[in-house]
Amino acid sequence: MAPTTPAYRRLSVEERRTQLLTAALTLFANRAPEDVSLDDVAEAAGVSRPLVYRYFPGGKQQLYEAALRSAAEELEQCFDEPRQGPLLPRLRRALDRYLAFVDQHDAGFSALLQGGSVVETSRTTAIVDGVRRAAADHILRHLDITEPTPRLRMTVRMWITAVEAASLIWLDENKQPPVDELRDWLVEQFVAVLSVTAARDPQTASVVQALASTDA
Amino acid sequence: MAPTTPAYRRLSVEERRTQLLTAALTLFANRAPEDVSLDDVAEAAGVSRPLVYRYFPGGKQQLYEAALRSAAEELEQCFDEPRQGPLLPRLRRALDRYLAFVDQHDAGFSALLQGGSVVETSRTTAIVDGVRRAAADHILRHLDITEPTPRLRMTVRMWITAVEAASLIWLDENKQPPVDELRDWLVEQFVAVLSVTAARDPQTASVVQALASTDA
Repeated sequence: MAPTTPAYRRLSVEERRTQLLTAALTLFANRAPEDVSLDDVAEAAGVSRPLVYRYFPGGKQQLYEAALRSAAEELEQCFDEPRQGPLLPRLRRALDRYLAFVDQHDAGFSALLQGGSVVETSRTTAIVDGVRRAAADHILRHLDITEPTPRLRMTVRMWITAVEAASLIWLDENKQPPVDELRDWLVEQFVAVLSVTAARDPQTASVVQALASTDA
Repeated sequence: MAPTTPAYRRLSVEERRTQLLTAALTLFANRAPEDVSLDDVAEAAGVSRPLVYRYFPGGKQQLYEAALRSAAEELEQCFDEPRQGPLLPRLRRALDRYLAFVDQHDAGFSALLQGGSVVETSRTTAIVDGVRRAAADHILRHLDITEPTPRLRMTVRMWITAVEAASLIWLDENKQPPVDELRDWLVEQFVAVLSVTAARDPQTASVVQALASTDA
């Protein structure tokens, strides 16, 4: 038999915090936030309610925001990619990490994206929007664009939203198509929508040319 | 001088309801929902708080949902388009109506799309998702597809999300580019992403062929 985690091993503060955040994310992902209580979180994590309060004295809202923030930070790390080598393989590697995150976090990922849904909403929406902005910034930096034209920026942001939608649909459809196909498909869509914009925007045209010359 | 609406004309029940819904949507669009009170709605509509309650005895949540629902219904009407003639001009006409809706409703449109943000969220999210589903169904029906492959359906849904994102960005950027350019750009993106999917999915390939043959 596989070894199991000893039931009563004392967790470090950081481990405990992570455990509570993971339990919270999973619950928020599967139920409407108003149907999740701190008791539920305590039960899912196998701890007492006072212990949850010790870690999150602000209660449910604080726990929810902390869970979102931790998922957001992890997600943003997926975008870290050295700025060297051909461009499309860089995008492919970042997408691989992103899709692995989606795959592993599953319910937690849905919770993150449906973030703006708890009582106090402006801060949680800001967390999710921050991830989207970070993704767009990373892409533009890799494309060596410091001052994007509105059309280029809009194209990149639209593609990011489409990737988000694809991820949620993919989770919904039992992770079909296979992740490698999904990743290639998304990269091809990126090039396709940039090519459409290129006809209307010289900056985007130069980006498409750079993609073609380094990645042909 | 242009004639103005007499300040004290009695509105019909329907007119009053519409007036309250419009006031509510505008408020919800510009502030976090928790910062909007029924007093604010009453003040914005120039009526008393009891009158708001007479129309919406369920209070803020009911008012919010009713406002969302009325915007959603109007939005879905944009998708109505006779199933005759070349396909891309049909899509162009539907997009023209949709973008006119976005243009006219501005703040209300943002409120609709940021829909899942009030206390009780599952129903409001369902309203917004309903509009997205309706849009996808309309498109597939026009394409004469009754049983879409997962890849085709996913492509259509991703494009719809990208259109949504584009609309919000467009409102954010003082309605630039001009609406006609935005519409053509979105149609071209639709064809481009379908063409990418066509390489992976025979059904989508036949759709792309149909688009090319009727609209070349």
